[in-house]
Amino acid sequence: MNTENKPIGVFDSGVGGLSVLRQLQIDHPQETFIYLGDTARLPYGTKSQTTIISYAERNLNYLLTNYNIKALVVACNSVSTVLEYVKSPVPLFGVIKPGAFAAVECLKNIGGKRIGLWATQATVLSKAYENEIKKLDPSIDVEMISCPTLVALVEESLNTHKLLPHAFDYYLEKFKEKIDVLILGCTHFPFFKEPLSKKIPEIQLIDSSISVSKSLSGKLELKNLNSRLNEKSLTKILITDEAKNFKSFIFQIFNKDIEVEKVEI
Amino acid sequence: MNTENKPIGVFDSGVGGLSVLRQLQIDHPQETFIYLGDTARLPYGTKSQTTIISYAERNLNYLLTNYNIKALVVACNSVSTVLEYVKSPVPLFGVIKPGAFAAVECLKNIGGKRIGLWATQATVLSKAYENEIKKLDPSIDVEMISCPTLVALVEESLNTHKLLPHAFDYYLEKFKEKIDVLILGCTHFPFFKEPLSKKIPEIQLIDSSISVSKSLSGKLELKNLNSRLNEKSLTKILITDEAKNFKSFIFQIFNKDIEVEKVEI
Repeated sequence: MNTENKPIGVFDSGVGGLSVLRQLQIDHPQETFIYLGDTARLPYGTKSQTTIISYAERNLNYLLTNYNIKALVVACNSVSTVLEYVKSPVPLFGVIKPGAFAAVECLKNIGGKRIGLWATQATVLSKAYENEIKKLDPSIDVEMISCPTLVALVEESLNTHKLLPHAFDYYLEKFKEKIDVLILGCTHFPFFKEPLSKKIPEIQLIDSSISVSKSLSGKLELKNLNSRLNEKSLTKILITDEAKNFKSFIFQIFNKDIEVEKVEI
Repeated sequence: MNTENKPIGVFDSGVGGLSVLRQLQIDHPQETFIYLGDTARLPYGTKSQTTIISYAERNLNYLLTNYNIKALVVACNSVSTVLEYVKSPVPLFGVIKPGAFAAVECLKNIGGKRIGLWATQATVLSKAYENEIKKLDPSIDVEMISCPTLVALVEESLNTHKLLPHAFDYYLEKFKEKIDVLILGCTHFPFFKEPLSKKIPEIQLIDSSISVSKSLSGKLELKNLNSRLNEKSLTKILITDEAKNFKSFIFQIFNKDIEVEKVEI
């Protein structure tokens, strides 16, 4: 098969990356996606860098060997923070750089000063978003808040959990000063973008699934790697352990069933 | 070393089992405990039975080979639900049977009718508590609620999280009828026993760390396995991955530092 017609891998520890997959499908209707949710080892966000890198390499190799992917979208912030240490023969797309870039652009457009971040503990500790933002403009203030309970709430019932509004209050109060832009720095968080933006319309929300999808478009174009198959886009979902809610979440997110296969990695 | 003077293993996926360890130390001041928190693979509560059994056997073998333990307390409800499938040359003590027994005793003492359970998804799906309770008295009503967000709140800040009272309300409202006894069916939950019992003094709370410690006492006595060493009890804590909060939690729980060693399993 010509390289351009090979599938694109999308990888996350669990259900969160489905927010990225949904965006990728919308923006790249002609591509085939193989989504791998490493549910046997989730969550990554509480694990050490060494462990996260070794999991990422194992998953990448699985997708290369079994699906011959032409590129990998790492739809997981915790893995995106260590992307430079992951060895890969195909291009890797993380969510941090595009998310940081979009946040800075947005801040400049609205003439704001401070960027806030909600993310997992691993992403916050890595300072990856702060570093990327400071590279673009060292004068920008960044405040990062670790929000493990928001992850649990989304995993329990996507964007409908009754405790979500209380959790929004709790994690918004943690910012020491008013922020202008809030990066949803965990792939679980775009699921509650709508109720959150209704609550805080004065704060611009950055959805990294949109940013990473844009960065993929640019690279595919540049490298002449857009699929030339005339077939409709196909998507397959692999998980490494049975996960309750997974299939019902897929239906809620995509409004249809998608084949889910359990694999050993 | 004589069998009776060997250490007792205590095993959990993470920080939750420290509630059991604390109780074991109080009730068995002469024993040496080796605590293993399998933080690299946590949480177990969302994983499948097959995966949980294989993790449990790996951890048991590690403690047998490296610490020559005389018994293992499985301070994890998710693993306790599959205990009968775990092969072991030493006695295993799970939290389910003692917890179910204590709940039934308590219910009879107060002349109540309904037992409620808060636990992880895996524990609820296993129906292990319900089965044990029904064996003791088939006429008792049992209602089980899966509470993943309560686990996240404890992992974030033990019993001090501002969202805890909201989460109590949320998960109490899930019971279809009034309950008389509530089993705290996850080792994370004894940490918030105090604020919860203040909130619902009319409901008796069952703390499985107390029940499992009692069942261990009985067995050690029966098998003549109580330590005869005159030294003060020693405790060592092993974890399989660095976990933020772990050391500060240890200090909060035990009012002192305890040595923590990272091990590869």
